[in-house]
Amino acid sequence: MLLWPGDVRAGDLFSDASLMAAMVRVEAAWLAALHEHGLAPSAPGLDDLVDPGDLPALAEDAEGGGNPVIPLLAVLRARLAGRDPGAAEALHAGLTSQDVLDTALVLNLRATADRLHKDLSDQVRVLSALADRHRGTRMAGRTLTQHAIPITFGLKAAGWLHGVLDARDLLETAAALPIQAGGAAGSLAAPTALTGAPDRALSLVRSAARTLDLPFREPWHTARAPFTRIGDAFVSCTDAWGKIANDVLLGSRPEIGELTEAPADGRGGSSTMPNKHNPVLAVLVRRAALAAPPLAATLHAAAAEAVDERPDGSWHVEWPTLQTLARRTVVAGSQTAELLAGLQVDPERMAATLAAARPGIDAERHRLGDDGPYLGATEELIDAALTRAGKPC
Amino acid sequence: MLLWPGDVRAGDLFSDASLMAAMVRVEAAWLAALHEHGLAPSAPGLDDLVDPGDLPALAEDAEGGGNPVIPLLAVLRARLAGRDPGAAEALHAGLTSQDVLDTALVLNLRATADRLHKDLSDQVRVLSALADRHRGTRMAGRTLTQHAIPITFGLKAAGWLHGVLDARDLLETAAALPIQAGGAAGSLAAPTALTGAPDRALSLVRSAARTLDLPFREPWHTARAPFTRIGDAFVSCTDAWGKIANDVLLGSRPEIGELTEAPADGRGGSSTMPNKHNPVLAVLVRRAALAAPPLAATLHAAAAEAVDERPDGSWHVEWPTLQTLARRTVVAGSQTAELLAGLQVDPERMAATLAAARPGIDAERHRLGDDGPYLGATEELIDAALTRAGKPC
Amino acid sequence: MLLWPGDVRAGDLFSDASLMAAMVRVEAAWLAALHEHGLAPSAPGLDDLVDPGDLPALAEDAEGGGNPVIPLLAVLRARLAGRDPGAAEALHAGLTSQDVLDTALVLNLRATADRLHKDLSDQVRVLSALADRHRGTRMAGRTLTQHAIPITFGLKAAGWLHGVLDARDLLETAAALPIQAGGAAGSLAAPTALTGAPDRALSLVRSAARTLDLPFREPWHTARAPFTRIGDAFVSCTDAWGKIANDVLLGSRPEIGELTEAPADGRGGSSTMPNKHNPVLAVLVRRAALAAPPLAATLHAAAAEAVDERPDGSWHVEWPTLQTLARRTVVAGSQTAELLAGLQVDPERMAATLAAARPGIDAERHRLGDDGPYLGATEELIDAALTRAGKPC
Amino acid sequence: MLLWPGDVRAGDLFSDASLMAAMVRVEAAWLAALHEHGLAPSAPGLDDLVDPGDLPALAEDAEGGGNPVIPLLAVLRARLAGRDPGAAEALHAGLTSQDVLDTALVLNLRATADRLHKDLSDQVRVLSALADRHRGTRMAGRTLTQHAIPITFGLKAAGWLHGVLDARDLLETAAALPIQAGGAAGSLAAPTALTGAPDRALSLVRSAARTLDLPFREPWHTARAPFTRIGDAFVSCTDAWGKIANDVLLGSRPEIGELTEAPADGRGGSSTMPNKHNPVLAVLVRRAALAAPPLAATLHAAAAEAVDERPDGSWHVEWPTLQTLARRTVVAGSQTAELLAGLQVDPERMAATLAAARPGIDAERHRLGDDGPYLGATEELIDAALTRAGKPC
Repeated sequence: MLLWPGDVRAGDLFSDASLMAAMVRVEAAWLAALHEHGLAPSAPGLDDLVDPGDLPALAEDAEGGGNPVIPLLAVLRARLAGRDPGAAEALHAGLTSQDVLDTALVLNLRATADRLHKDLSDQVRVLSALADRHRGTRMAGRTLTQHAIPITFGLKAAGWLHGVLDARDLLETAAALPIQAGGAAGSLAAPTALTGAPDRALSLVRSAARTLDLPFREPWHTARAPFTRIGDAFVSCTDAWGKIANDVLLGSRPEIGELTEAPADGRGGSSTMPNKHNPVLAVLVRRAALAAPPLAATLHAAAAEAVDERPDGSWHVEWPTLQTLARRTVVAGSQTAELLAGLQVDPERMAATLAAARPGIDAERHRLGDDGPYLGATEELIDAALTRAGKPC
Repeated sequence: MLLWPGDVRAGDLFSDASLMAAMVRVEAAWLAALHEHGLAPSAPGLDDLVDPGDLPALAEDAEGGGNPVIPLLAVLRARLAGRDPGAAEALHAGLTSQDVLDTALVLNLRATADRLHKDLSDQVRVLSALADRHRGTRMAGRTLTQHAIPITFGLKAAGWLHGVLDARDLLETAAALPIQAGGAAGSLAAPTALTGAPDRALSLVRSAARTLDLPFREPWHTARAPFTRIGDAFVSCTDAWGKIANDVLLGSRPEIGELTEAPADGRGGSSTMPNKHNPVLAVLVRRAALAAPPLAATLHAAAAEAVDERPDGSWHVEWPTLQTLARRTVVAGSQTAELLAGLQVDPERMAATLAAARPGIDAERHRLGDDGPYLGATEELIDAALTRAGKPC
Repeated sequence: MLLWPGDVRAGDLFSDASLMAAMVRVEAAWLAALHEHGLAPSAPGLDDLVDPGDLPALAEDAEGGGNPVIPLLAVLRARLAGRDPGAAEALHAGLTSQDVLDTALVLNLRATADRLHKDLSDQVRVLSALADRHRGTRMAGRTLTQHAIPITFGLKAAGWLHGVLDARDLLETAAALPIQAGGAAGSLAAPTALTGAPDRALSLVRSAARTLDLPFREPWHTARAPFTRIGDAFVSCTDAWGKIANDVLLGSRPEIGELTEAPADGRGGSSTMPNKHNPVLAVLVRRAALAAPPLAATLHAAAAEAVDERPDGSWHVEWPTLQTLARRTVVAGSQTAELLAGLQVDPERMAATLAAARPGIDAERHRLGDDGPYLGATEELIDAALTRAGKPC
Repeated sequence: MLLWPGDVRAGDLFSDASLMAAMVRVEAAWLAALHEHGLAPSAPGLDDLVDPGDLPALAEDAEGGGNPVIPLLAVLRARLAGRDPGAAEALHAGLTSQDVLDTALVLNLRATADRLHKDLSDQVRVLSALADRHRGTRMAGRTLTQHAIPITFGLKAAGWLHGVLDARDLLETAAALPIQAGGAAGSLAAPTALTGAPDRALSLVRSAARTLDLPFREPWHTARAPFTRIGDAFVSCTDAWGKIANDVLLGSRPEIGELTEAPADGRGGSSTMPNKHNPVLAVLVRRAALAAPPLAATLHAAAAEAVDERPDGSWHVEWPTLQTLARRTVVAGSQTAELLAGLQVDPERMAATLAAARPGIDAERHRLGDDGPYLGATEELIDAALTRAGKPC
């Protein structure tokens, strides 16, 4: 990913390799459920049957059936056959490609959400400290680009904090993604045929869900709210970080100079101008915030077009959209956490700008005949944000 | 709205007139709070000060300050002055334009959500009945456009029902939109100056919130999750309805003929072909589902760009986006409710298609050596959907 | 349009009334063609048969057939019948709804493009003057928010000029929109039946095209590049203006202070802060630039879904999308023209910032051992832009 | 790319490796220009200095400065130093990162356009043959999902052909992408300092452009129409193919059965249902058409936000968006070409459906008292499409 600087921060999270591993894990969990129900002679682990070296061939072969499950299954069956022919025969029995791929996406999305939760919680901690430390750090409040009235940087940080908390709340709810297992057309026909009874088919699904530690849900092959909701939650994260990045980008302009990204080795340089110290993290976070909303919109467009019992293209468009959105959100979350942790605030410059903004910036105060610092309920509002941040989520 | 057939279904909901009325209602609630706190000599109702005839001038004058609150306020003050000069002077004291406009948007969004909730609940009722009545109505299940295995129409209706229930759940949470009241830069500076103490400023806000029956929240001028979340919920509604519309459009093709929109006077005709009976409601619902996701994406893009204490353009783009999205969602909800209420299902045609699809469509069953109807857990899955639908939400 | 301040600038352009008038004009041109070919006893003007007072009923009745042509036709026929029964009977003969609506959209889009061309040309003139006048006005060049090297404001204006010229070029090509006339399924079946020969059917279309002053094209009911291309051109306009608006918004921040919108009565005020002079035009232009891209994307999504000989929803979504996009582009074009015409440039403030940016901003120059003004080919680049602007387009 | 089945069709086109190679090529062309102007002692080829094995480190190091040019340059300089220290010192002199990256993107986009042109021309050939061969193959024309009037499949193919020709025209114009070379802030300051005169700086640029076989243009660092236009052209391609894919998906439904994708080994199978023969190519093409419009919208959003002399995030978002859009368009183009080349048309099934649609589908004809085949100007319209296709583009 040469063209998404910072992508390395996402590591193996929701990589092609992780997706493949998750598909294998789903097949293994299902095989274990089959075994538990007497439908497979054994339930061997499958992890070691494939490795990342298999990815190029799988990617190439995925076009034939239109998805990567079919070639993966062929590989698994062939390799397992020599070792455990009975298990190889039982593999995937009762499932459809969408069951495996959707659940593998779910596993990767859950891992993404877990990682994001960590970064969001780090951000909450840092922002709470910033809001508290700077509750009295006065600066010019700005609306529509112009000086409005004085505020404090702590209040601004409390606003950032609310944004991050909103995002964390949304992510928390959206992350409870369920297993997908319904067979060819979502009726559990094949699992029922295999087990002999609908209840036992449902029991198979519940068993696999337990193994994968996923909530149960009736098949949702064409009711795609679980995926649109997590997509929206990811974008709500980049929204909150985009707001912060925009404020940092503005604050780090030399004419304003109130905020600075922490210097770091090899960070923020230019290919030609030795003078430059660019706010690279904020730039890259803003980039992510610009790119994310159309991706979530793609998920919604796909959901609306989910015709039949499995749709003709709108299912397929979800996969790379979720992957790209998830990885970029993780990268931006990590960059925002680092940005906030190192953010340098310059109270003197803030004070100087505020002083220079007088008397204009005091016009409302003067109109009201007030002679105080005109900070309103800043203390109370910051306290409320800190209280919200302190609550377990 | 000549170019959004069906718009009339939304009536006055979130119309320009309703928005103006809501702004007046916000000013009145604030005036009442001021009066309650001894800051206004009286708190007259303001409803009769303006009427829809004022809209053209307000719309024209809105450009000067960039929003419609400023000219509205001028009109209210001028007209109130003759009647109640003290109240006229107190009007809007402590508020900023964004407080009034955001809260007016909130009031209109809540009314929208209430109306949607009714249509969604109607849909839930009709879909539950459809799923129950047709639990045994067999038809061809289709994946990737091709016949897959037999299902029942009741199972398909249960899938639609899950989609609608998902949307209703999301809307329910998103509809709890809070008051916006923070003054010029979100610090409650002016309200504090007016009341003499932060606690009393917060008390002003809580009083206005009570009058408007809105939850309290700390100022969210640049933390826009409340608006992006309701936008996402609207799109989740059109997603669910788009799925239904796509299935109906397909099912009402003459070559398939399983589903038909109820005939209605003047519905579905053509300007030239007397033979046509077009599935107009489904067409118009699908239209809405195609248009909605990019609008919600616009709200997210705006949220991410919420720089400063009030942003330079990204606030402004939210207003018409919310209005358009809300009205269109209401129209689509009403059309879907009517579509479902009148939907004609043709079990014989379904049975005939299923018979013609044999033996191919039974291939999986034969492979598994099953000799039953191969409906899997259809009964249980429908029961689960009905149970979910029966729960209070 | 209370919620799109400035909408009044678009006046009647592409309003519902203009759209209705254009549909009437299309029917009249077709009637004249029929008359010319001996298929209508007369070809009366139809303009006075309807007026804006008919809009509410038409809008309401549009839902029945899913488009406004059907009820409009009923009204025209009924009203014409008393006056000229032969013409009333001939009306619309051989056309389909899509012919009328698409061509009416084309007429409105062409009027929009004409209006935009005027504003773009005004902008070209003003920008050329700005670039020329300020070719030597030195200021800090900025990249990634930080001071880079010195430039001149003339060079920046030349960059804006290139953007506007690019947009004008694109619009010019896209504006050559053709007539739509193909009958029920794009084969000219009914016109051929009426005239007795394919050549005469084509002659009918060419005659109507001449009357409407539109280029001929074979029916494009489901080949929608004409509409996506004009949508893309509109967005290319708002892109160019958005770039300008962003630079003006930044330049008019008090900490930078290099650019100011011309003061105007009632412009830029606040509902509470007497000190505020907000850059309202730039704010509103940026708003338009944020809103436009998703609308053009909707047109593309619709084009790709143009199934059959007329699609089931994706045709319908184009109409309001084109209307909204067109009107907003006109408003933004007018606002940008006014913004540029009144833009106040502060060379002294630019010089002061540049001086304060030293020596950092000269680092590249020093590294290269240069001791000149370090303006590179600024003169030549400005001259090139002016030359391009001077060419007839 | 496990999750974009078919990605392998794009091969190395616009891969990370190709992008890296293009950046090296740009540096080499510039070095040659410097040498030609006496500013570099030699102009060695640079191709062999890096290979794909360098990509992971470059991707990782790209975050420091926010783009991959900076680390690439460090590697090139270090490796060249041992071999040709003078050239190593001269490398990149006068350029900025954006010059290199933008021009490298241009080179990859041009290669993409060349490849697309080939596939589009193949499609034109196949579609012309289809339209000609089936000019008399009668079938039911369908509007709003319902039978409208009879048409021929040749006419439908001619409509597809117009769509593809529109796309090819747009691509042709958009593909003439210029070199980017302006130095740090687009003024050619450093090249002028190095060469001693603006004319010689411009001559440097022209020389590099010649080497790269690219048109010259004044710096367009923040006038991004070249990129938005090619993005729009890509989407116009997927629009045209999406229309075709939707028609094929519909036509290959078993209830309709008029069109079939050519069978191919390992194509269209299912993981569980041996009966399935899915129209995989059409499914994958439709997927691409659903995903493309939001990506082009992202390019426009970025263009509008191009503040300053290089923007803070909106530049960065263009790179991966262009890459993803370009590769996916190539894949969809190849799939569409293959789909069309193998498309199986069933005239008997078409005739049978048409017969079954009678008398309804003849209602318009009967109303007009016509007793012919009611094909209108089909022959002439097909001829016109073939004539257009035959013109050199």
